[in-house]
Amino acid sequence: MSNNENSAGLAGVTAGKTAVCTVGKKGVGLTYRGYLIEDLAAKAEFEEVAYLMLYGELPTQSQLDAYKQRLIGMRGLPDAVKKALELTPGDAHPMDVMRTGASVLGTVEQENDPEAQQHDVADRLLASFPSMLLYWYHFTDSGKRIDVETDDDKIGGHFLHLLHGEKPSADATKAMSTSLILYAEHEFNASTFTARVVTATLSDFYSAVTAAIGALRGPLHGGANEKAMELIQTFEDADAAEKGLKEMMARKEKIMGFGHRVYKTHDPRNPIIKEWSKHFAGDDAYKRNLYEISERIEQVMWDEKKLFPNADFYHATAYHFLGIPTHLFTPIFVISRLTGWGAHIFEQRADNRLIRPNAEYVGPEIRDFRPIDQRGS
Amino acid sequence: MSNNENSAGLAGVTAGKTAVCTVGKKGVGLTYRGYLIEDLAAKAEFEEVAYLMLYGELPTQSQLDAYKQRLIGMRGLPDAVKKALELTPGDAHPMDVMRTGASVLGTVEQENDPEAQQHDVADRLLASFPSMLLYWYHFTDSGKRIDVETDDDKIGGHFLHLLHGEKPSADATKAMSTSLILYAEHEFNASTFTARVVTATLSDFYSAVTAAIGALRGPLHGGANEKAMELIQTFEDADAAEKGLKEMMARKEKIMGFGHRVYKTHDPRNPIIKEWSKHFAGDDAYKRNLYEISERIEQVMWDEKKLFPNADFYHATAYHFLGIPTHLFTPIFVISRLTGWGAHIFEQRADNRLIRPNAEYVGPEIRDFRPIDQRGS
Repeated sequence: MSNNENSAGLAGVTAGKTAVCTVGKKGVGLTYRGYLIEDLAAKAEFEEVAYLMLYGELPTQSQLDAYKQRLIGMRGLPDAVKKALELTPGDAHPMDVMRTGASVLGTVEQENDPEAQQHDVADRLLASFPSMLLYWYHFTDSGKRIDVETDDDKIGGHFLHLLHGEKPSADATKAMSTSLILYAEHEFNASTFTARVVTATLSDFYSAVTAAIGALRGPLHGGANEKAMELIQTFEDADAAEKGLKEMMARKEKIMGFGHRVYKTHDPRNPIIKEWSKHFAGDDAYKRNLYEISERIEQVMWDEKKLFPNADFYHATAYHFLGIPTHLFTPIFVISRLTGWGAHIFEQRADNRLIRPNAEYVGPEIRDFRPIDQRGS
Repeated sequence: MSNNENSAGLAGVTAGKTAVCTVGKKGVGLTYRGYLIEDLAAKAEFEEVAYLMLYGELPTQSQLDAYKQRLIGMRGLPDAVKKALELTPGDAHPMDVMRTGASVLGTVEQENDPEAQQHDVADRLLASFPSMLLYWYHFTDSGKRIDVETDDDKIGGHFLHLLHGEKPSADATKAMSTSLILYAEHEFNASTFTARVVTATLSDFYSAVTAAIGALRGPLHGGANEKAMELIQTFEDADAAEKGLKEMMARKEKIMGFGHRVYKTHDPRNPIIKEWSKHFAGDDAYKRNLYEISERIEQVMWDEKKLFPNADFYHATAYHFLGIPTHLFTPIFVISRLTGWGAHIFEQRADNRLIRPNAEYVGPEIRDFRPIDQRGS
C-alpha cells in the first residue's frame, strides 16, 4: 500500500489542531467547545450556540440579549447585494445565490483588517444570509422586493418569517433553532476544511466563506437532506418505500442521509431532529405518511446495510413540515454552519501555517518537447 | 512529537495522486504532464500549454488553431456578469472581482452535467477572465464600458489589448504568454488543493474555481509579486535597497518573493521571467534602476539568508515594464492557473473520494451545561 492509498481523501490523517469540536471521540458523539450536542439542542437557543462558537464561551443573559439586538441590526442588505441577487436567475442553484451574495458583500463591506473586523464580518454574514436567500427567492418567484428586516429576535424565526411572510409559531421557531444548533459545527468536514485552507493563505473572511459554501454545495456534503426528501416523496407509502428501496439497493444506487465518514454506529444528531419530525407529523394524514415512509426507510437501511440515519435524513421531513421548499434546505445549512466556519477561521488565523500537502505523481515520465509541426494529427 | 505537529499544514503529507505535474522531483524543477517547464516556456505558446493541461496532450497545429478560435469566441460577457462587475466598487480587491465574476457566471451559465460541460466551462472561464477583470477595471476607473471582444489570437495579447486599448507589441505578447505558462500549474499548491477539496464533494466547476480564487487571493499564496513590486518601489536605488533590506531583516520583516515550501535550492521559473524583466529594462534609466534594485535584493537575500527568488520576484518588474498596474498582478495568476485548476478538477472527478481529514482536539474537556440564569457575568 502506498502512502497515498493510506491517506486517500485524507481519511484518518490529522490536518491540524482545534479547540472547537469533537466528533465521535471516546464514545461521546459530538461536542461544541466541550458541551454535549444533546445539552445544547435541548437547553440552548441557536444564538447562544452562535455566541459560543464565535466568542468562545456561552453568553450571560445580558450578553445574549445584546448579541441578539446586534444581529437584528445587521439584517439589511446593501443595494449592490440586492441588485446582484436580482440578476441571479430563478433557476440558479440556491447555493450559488449564497456563494454570490457572500462574494458581493465582501466587495462592498471589505475585511481589510481581520483582527479588528473579523467578528463583525462573521456576525454580519450570520445575520444577513437569511435576508439574501429569501430576497432572491421572493424576487425570482413573484417579482416582489421584500423587506428583509424583521423584529424577530431569533434567526430561525426571522428565516421562517421572511419565507412565509408571517410570524412563525413558537414551535416552528424552536424547531428551527434546534436544527441550526445541530448543523452549526462538525470539526474538519469538507467545507470547514476548505475554509481553513483558504484562510491559511491569509485571505479574507469572505473568500473563506465563499469557498466553504462551494464545498457544502456538493451532494456528498451538504445536499443530503434535499436528496432524502426527494427520495421520500417518490414513494406512496411505507410498504412501497420498502419495495422501492430494495430495488434501488439491487441496482446499487446510493441512498442519501445514511452513514457517516466519522460516526460508525449512530449520529447523535439524528434522534433530536427525528423527534421534531415526528412532532410536526402529528395526526395529519399526509405528514404522518411521509414520516412512516421515513421510518420504514430507516428500518430497511439498518436491516439490509447496517446503516443508520445521519443528521440529514429526518431533517428532510422536519423542514418539509415547516413548509420549506426542498431546494432551500442546503442554504439553511450555510446559515447554521457559518458559526462553525467562523470559529475555525478565527482559530486558523490565530496559529497559522499555509496548508499545502504533497501529491503522489502517477503521470508520464519526462518527455521530449516536439515542436508543433512535428506532432502527429 | 504528536501526529499533528508532524503534519502541520500537511507539509510532507500525500493527499492524493496526480498525473498533471511534478514539483522539485529528483532534481527536475517543474514538469507539466511530463514536459519540462524550460521547454514549454521557450518553445510553446500559452494556448498550447492550456490545451495540454485541459485536454491532456499538446495539440497539433490544426487542433491549436481550432482551440484559439474557440477561445476567441468565448470572450464576451453576459449582461448579468457585466452588471455585477459594474456594482463592484473600484476600491474592491481585484481578486474579489474575479471571485464574484466567476460566481455570477456560474449562475447564468450553469454546469448541470459535468461530464458533458466541464471542458466548455473551463474554456469559457479561461477566455472570459481577462474580459471580466478589464471590464471592471475600465468601468470603475473611467466609467467606460469597454468592448471586451478583440481578435487577438493569444490570451496574453487579448489581456494587454484590453488593458491598454491598443494592440500590444509582439515582444509584450510573447512575454505575457511565457508568464502565463510559468504560472499555469504547480501541483497541490493551496488554491489547487482548495479546488480539489471542493470538487470532491461533487460540487460544480464554478464553486471549485471561486474557492480557488479565494485561496490564491491570500498574500501567502498569490499576492507575492504585488508585494515584491511594492518593496522594489520603496527604494531609490540599489544601494538604498541593500541598506533598507538589511534594516527590514533586523526587524524580522518578511520579504515576499523568496524561497518556497517545495523548492529548496532554486525556482526553475525564476531565470525565465528574470530574462524578460532584464529585456524590458533595456537601456531605459528608470526601468534599469528598478531592475538593478531587484538584482541587489536578490543578492542580499542570498548572502544573508540563502534564500533564492521564486517565480514571483522578477514577475513584479516584468509586469511593471508591461504597464500593468500592480493590483492587477494576482488576477493574471488566476487567468493562467485556471488551466491547472481545471486539470485537477477533471482529475479529482475521474477518481473521486471526499477529502475530509481529522483534527487533533486541544479544547476543553466535557463541561456541564449551565442554564443561562446560572452563568456568571
